[in-house]
Parts: sequence; C-alpha cells; structure tokens
Amino acid sequence: MTQASPARTRQLQELVDALGEDKVITNPATIDNYRWDRANDPDAGTSMAVVRATSAEDVQTTLRFAASGRIPVVARGAGSGLSGGSSAVDGGIILSTEKMRDIEIDPLTRIAVVQPGAFNSEVKVAAAEHGLWYPPDPSSVEFCSIGGNIATNAGGLCCVKYGVTADYVLGMKVVLADGRQVELGGPRLKDVAGLDLTQLFVGSEGTLGVITEVTLRLVPAQRPPTTLVAAFATLDESTKTILDVASTMRPSMLEFMDNLTINAVEDATGMGLDREAAAMLIIQSDEPAEYAAEEIAKIELLCAEHNATEVFYTSDPEEAEAIIVARRMAIPAIEQKGTLLLEDVGVPLPSLGELVRGIEQISKNEDVMIAVIAHAGDGNTHPLLVFDPMVEDQKQRAHRAYGQVMDLAVRLGGTITGEHGVGRLKRPWLVDSIGEDALELNHRIKMALDPNNILNPGAMFDPAMIVGEDPH
Amino acid sequence: MTQASPARTRQLQELVDALGEDKVITNPATIDNYRWDRANDPDAGTSMAVVRATSAEDVQTTLRFAASGRIPVVARGAGSGLSGGSSAVDGGIILSTEKMRDIEIDPLTRIAVVQPGAFNSEVKVAAAEHGLWYPPDPSSVEFCSIGGNIATNAGGLCCVKYGVTADYVLGMKVVLADGRQVELGGPRLKDVAGLDLTQLFVGSEGTLGVITEVTLRLVPAQRPPTTLVAAFATLDESTKTILDVASTMRPSMLEFMDNLTINAVEDATGMGLDREAAAMLIIQSDEPAEYAAEEIAKIELLCAEHNATEVFYTSDPEEAEAIIVARRMAIPAIEQKGTLLLEDVGVPLPSLGELVRGIEQISKNEDVMIAVIAHAGDGNTHPLLVFDPMVEDQKQRAHRAYGQVMDLAVRLGGTITGEHGVGRLKRPWLVDSIGEDALELNHRIKMALDPNNILNPGAMFDPAMIVGEDPH
Repeated sequence: MTQASPARTRQLQELVDALGEDKVITNPATIDNYRWDRANDPDAGTSMAVVRATSAEDVQTTLRFAASGRIPVVARGAGSGLSGGSSAVDGGIILSTEKMRDIEIDPLTRIAVVQPGAFNSEVKVAAAEHGLWYPPDPSSVEFCSIGGNIATNAGGLCCVKYGVTADYVLGMKVVLADGRQVELGGPRLKDVAGLDLTQLFVGSEGTLGVITEVTLRLVPAQRPPTTLVAAFATLDESTKTILDVASTMRPSMLEFMDNLTINAVEDATGMGLDREAAAMLIIQSDEPAEYAAEEIAKIELLCAEHNATEVFYTSDPEEAEAIIVARRMAIPAIEQKGTLLLEDVGVPLPSLGELVRGIEQISKNEDVMIAVIAHAGDGNTHPLLVFDPMVEDQKQRAHRAYGQVMDLAVRLGGTITGEHGVGRLKRPWLVDSIGEDALELNHRIKMALDPNNILNPGAMFDPAMIVGEDPH
Repeated sequence: MTQASPARTRQLQELVDALGEDKVITNPATIDNYRWDRANDPDAGTSMAVVRATSAEDVQTTLRFAASGRIPVVARGAGSGLSGGSSAVDGGIILSTEKMRDIEIDPLTRIAVVQPGAFNSEVKVAAAEHGLWYPPDPSSVEFCSIGGNIATNAGGLCCVKYGVTADYVLGMKVVLADGRQVELGGPRLKDVAGLDLTQLFVGSEGTLGVITEVTLRLVPAQRPPTTLVAAFATLDESTKTILDVASTMRPSMLEFMDNLTINAVEDATGMGLDREAAAMLIIQSDEPAEYAAEEIAKIELLCAEHNATEVFYTSDPEEAEAIIVARRMAIPAIEQKGTLLLEDVGVPLPSLGELVRGIEQISKNEDVMIAVIAHAGDGNTHPLLVFDPMVEDQKQRAHRAYGQVMDLAVRLGGTITGEHGVGRLKRPWLVDSIGEDALELNHRIKMALDPNNILNPGAMFDPAMIVGEDPH
C-alpha cells in the first residue's frame, strides 16, 4: 500500500472540486471495498480514490483528470469479474458505474439503451415487459453489470444456441483515454461505415475506453423450454453424449457438472442429485412443442446409447428453474469448500473429452481438488481449483495446476478464456493462447488508443509492452 | 494512366522471379480486366501488375515485395464489390484471390474453413452436403467471394433474422502490411483472449490486411420457408406494414421493391408482377409448419389493415424460388435502364417511411430516376440512381442526388452503408456518417496496422489522413 504524496493529495482535491464530494471516495475503508473483484486477486493494489460516476460527464471529467496526471483508471461495474480485470491499481482511480443504471426499451426497433451499471437481470426484466428478450445469461446474471458483460464479452448458458454478448451489441458511447466521448454504431442492424470499433471495444476489458451507454439488440421472448437431466457413470460417456447432441441438433442449453460439483451442489441444496454420478448433463430444447418433444426424444436416445444411468425431463417451468438454479449455484457451492482459482478454458468440441480427462490427470498429479462445470455445448469449461491459501504448499500446487490447465487447453487448440476475460490473473498465458504476432497487433492497437496506458493498466497486457507516444 | 519507370520495371521483375510468371500479370489488356469492381469507379487507376495468388505464401511474398517498395496493394476476390473498394490504384498491385478456393467442412464442430476466393454459393453448397447452412446471402451470392463478403461484412436477405457475415466469422488467417501472416480467433464459439481482432478485420475492406483463410460457423439447415408477396397502392402503406411486421414477429425475410423496380423486373422476366403497385413486399417465415401458418396469417392481416391490393403466399419451393430470383434480379434489371449509382443507406426501422418518401422527393427535385429496393426488415435500402453518363447535366444531377440520399440517411440517424462498404465512392461521406472523433479513432488504428498506407489506399480513408510512422 502506497501513501499518497502531498502533491497527489492536492491533485485529488481538483477532482473532488470538479465532481463534488459525494462522488469521490477517499476514505481508505471504503476504498478497500472496491479493491477486489470476485477473482480476489492477491496482488490487487490500493487506489487513491473511487469515483462513483452518475453520468457520462462525470466519466469524462474523471478521465480528463487522469489523463493530465497520467493516473491509472480502472473501470468497474458490479465487481463480479472473475479474472481480476477490475482489481485496483496502486495510486489509481476506481471508476465505478454502479450508479449509472438507466434502461430504456424501444419495442418498435427492439433495442435497449442501457447505462453500464444496470444489472444484466434488470435488462432482461425491462425487455420482458415488452415481450422481448435479452439472451446473454452469465451465471452471475443477478449481480453482474451490463458494462462488465460488454467489457468481457460475457457468455452464459444460452450461448450454444443464441451466441454471446457481442452478438447483441449494436452500439455504444465510450469515453476515451483523453476524456472525449465517442459514439460507435447505433440502433442499426446493419452498418459497415468504417472499421467495426463497436466490436473492437466489446471484450476490451476497460483497456481502450470506459463505456457510458450501450445499445443492445433484443429478440422476441424465448419459447418455454423443455429441460432434460442425464447422469453418467463415466466422464467419457458424458462427453461423447455432448458431442453427439451438439453436432446433430441445436439445444438451447447444454451444461455439464462433474462429480465434485454435483456433490457440492447437493451439499448446499439437498435436492436429491445422484452423488455417485461421474457427470450430469442439463440439456434444454426451446423449439416449438412438437419439435421440442422430437429433440428431447433424440437426446434421450443418445443418452441411452452412451449408458446414461438416469434420464429425466420436464416441461414444468418451476421444476426446470430448480435445475437451472442448481447449475447457477455451482460456483458458490464450491466456494464453500475453500479458496477458488477459477478457470475458463475452451476447446473445439471434439476435444472436450480429452480436456476433461487431462484436467482429471492434472488434479491427480498435483493433488489439487478440481471441480469442473462447463457450458459444454460450446466447449467452454470452468475447472474450479479449490485450495487452502494458508497452506503454502497447497497454494503453490493449485497455482501450478492453474497454469497447466491453460497450457492443456492451448495444446488442444483452445483458448485460456472463453467468457471471463484475461484480466490480471490470466495475462501471463495470453501470449501462448493467441501467439506473439497477434499479441503484438493487440499492443499496437492499445498504444494507438491509450498511448500513456492509463486505462486499466496491467489488465490483459503487460504494462512493460505498452510504450506508446501520445499523438497529441 | 502512368507509365512504369525502368526502376519499377526492374523491381517488378523481382516479384515475377519470386512468384513465377504465371501468377504475375503485366500484360496491360489483362490488367485492365482487373481495373474495376462492379461499382465501375470512373476514377479507378491502372495497376502495374495483377498477382493471382494460389496460396497464403504467394500473398505473403506479394506483401513483402509491396512493403519494401511502398507499393499499394488492392486485394480482390470476385470483383463484385459495389462501392469501389477493389478498384485499381495507379502503380499498385491488384492481389486477386480468385484461385484460392478450397472449402473444408467439419460437420462435428459445424465449421467451414474456406479460402477467400471461394464463392458464397460454393460454401452454401458444401455446407448443405452435411445438412448444414451458411446463412449470409448477399443478392450476389452466386458470384461474390467469401473474402469479399468478410472484407465488407456483407449482408443479404436473411439478415433480418439470421444476422450478417460478422456473426458467422469465428477466425481468420490474415497477411499484414509487412507480409507476416497472423491467425486470429479459430474454431471456438467463445473466445475472449485478447482484443477481438477477428471482428476488427471483418468489414475492414482490405485496409488492414489480406485474408488468406476464414473459419466460418455453420448452423443446421433452414426449415423450408413459406413466402408471402403483397402489393400496395402507396409507399406509406407498405412501410407501415414493414414496421408492424418487423416489430411483432420474426420473419426470415422482409424485402421491399418500389414501382420502378417492379417494372424493371417485369420488363426482364414477364412473370406477371403488378405494374401499377407503388410497392411490393416479399416476406418469408421459416418457423415450423403450424407456427409459420400462424405467422403468415398475422402478416396477411397486417397487409390487409394497410390496404394491400394483393396478397399471395406459397409453401411451394419452386414458386418461392421464382419470387426470390425476381428480387435478386432487381439490380441487373435496373442496370438495363442506364448507368447506376448504387446506394446502401440504412435507418432505424421507424424512420424507413421517411427515408423512402425523402428519396422520392430527391428524385423529383433532381429529376433523376431512383429505383428503390430494400432489405426492409432491417432498414437497409438500396436506392439505385439511373443516369446516362454521356449526358453531363444528368450525370451531375445523379451525383448530387447520390450525396443527398446519404445526407438524408445520416439526418435520420442512419448509415451511409449497411452492407456494401465505404470503398472509394462513399469515402467523402464517412465523416458525416460516423463523426469526426470516431473517424479519428479509425485513422489511429489504420496507422497502427499499416503505417505506410500500402493496403488498399484510398478505400474507406483519405490517404492524406493516414500518415503513420513505421514502428519497425
């Protein structure tokens, strides 16, 4: 923790004068509340201040101030990030958008115009009031912000059929490193005027600008799905079923939980899951009734072919919701078992079996508990490494295993992060995931847009590699 | 036309030596065949050579050669571009990918790995052999290349339900301005490792790199659609119907043709269209049978409410295909009437009526024939300005009207190009469409990736604004 110099304190007073005392937090205890996101990065720094912006103008004022003093700015939505993309930086400013939460729905053009601090679930509710649907559904849907979803290009459970956050972003307003606000894209389904900067900013993790407003595409409400649950005695039988289902039909959900996860969820809920099963799949079809029945029948057959020990399905919304809630509870349930290192590796679907077997081997080799949940239909897995941070040797083995899982995914033609972002925790593996040349292209774009590296420095990119010249 | 200097001729010999004579065309008559794309840009230059690459290595060799001599390189797929994005540059090289046409389908992961010269229709056919579908369907589907589709983020008729080219691009290999090839993205449905450079390159019109391979997402085959045709006595009634349909259901096609277009198509086909109608809509539903019937019944009702003079629908694939072919023939049919200036303006759907009325007014004011076709469901219109280039006054009025239509779209919150790209023809209007700040961001990215502006100079960006420093 660094102590602010008198010069910096005077400087900070300028920001307080410009924004008002209620928006600029300098009280150390409150600053501490904004130090970590959900990744609990042990190397998080200590900010000099937290700004709780209430408008785009506040964001601009903050960035102009930061630019003039070359002060790091970390944008933060709900703080639910899982890769340390919004953990604090020493001497920097946490720019929170938690108070910017307006949502406007235009049912005629089927768009939502949303401020970044609104929760994903709030957008869903607002859209539903007009019979419309905002599909992206990270498991944290109830407590993650739209701004954070866009910053990480968040995924979720419906992606296997309905795509990721990027597929629903039509435009945004974003404040750049110099405090200018630009408008990118807009309420147009087709627009190819200039480079697609909207999509460049999606998933940029606050390293290129701070989002102040987004324009989202909505679609008609989803049909009520039918939900199938299947249990398997071996991992291989479950991953073979996943591949067969995903390559022959189009389920609207295809989730995987391994034995450790099943047991953790069962410990937390006592809902009667099969504690002996090696894996459980949750599969939904939202096709119209008779087609869903046909799809579910096919899925049931494939499960049987791969020796499912139990298959159950329901069209009852409450029963289905209970199952989905169980799936959404997986991370909190496993968090009860110890400190987590949360992976987000993905592979092309035919390699999913090999990935899951490889993770099991890493768990054995390093003697680290690794529970696996997966958005299996798109090959995106979340191995959850559980350890006791007070036991140094265990902690070291967990961190070693964390890297080994990413190395394995990359070897299988996969990615180190499917939907959580690189943040600070996965940064050392980015070069292996995308290659040196692609990383160098990333650096060039970062330097072109934020030459002084004040926007979320240390997230995604190694600060030593960002040595741009201010073009102004 | 500039004459190659002896120095340049010697230089060119290096390229011939490196690639072989069969791949480097220096014969002026053949070079002339590659001078224009379908926009027939009157200001197209004259290349010093055309390279017909057969591999990524050929593309790399060409770009290394171009980089060392700071020679402009214009990538070209099938030459079907409509904005002059691949018209020749004086003293430059046209880099044609017409011989790079491999297509590989992986039905398990539902992806296609395609070389840029393959036609869109060839990808569709290859996918269909596995029961899969590549949705993007520009009207030029039979004679446009996938590389060009990606360079322009091409749209088409199905976008209203199935999105644009960008929605199907998972990854690509691209050769940069210095001749390096980088791999971006890949066969993963979710991947957020680093900035989304894949999406940045989609729609970049050859200004950032030359695509040598793309990885496309495929989906299960479309259900056979039901096709409805409706005729209206007034433009307003037709645009009100469009808005009502698009905002209350989800048609898989929603096309518009105005009176001039109907008559041009009727002249060409004699298929019995209503020559008196002010507008005709073609609407498809590809929902499962009973739902399609329900959707079509609702559409019929909306058409009746807006006084359609005729409504007809069919589930017969051949009858439907005849109607779609008529729609696809619109541009060639109108081309019979004179030289075209082809617009591609789009607006948010509630403004479509105002756009169409405004275009009618511009046509009257400037006394220029403007036929309008539209992918109406997503607000994307193609006003076709018809003129005789030999009549100077008419030509001037047409060019004036061309600008006025774009100005109108921008005033209505729209875009100057929905799916064709900016190219050279729409470049002067780009700043009005996206604003000075967004344009400046575009310039920074262009300069960061192609500091010597050798990649398609003059397309999208004013060369005077691209004054980068080579970072090497």
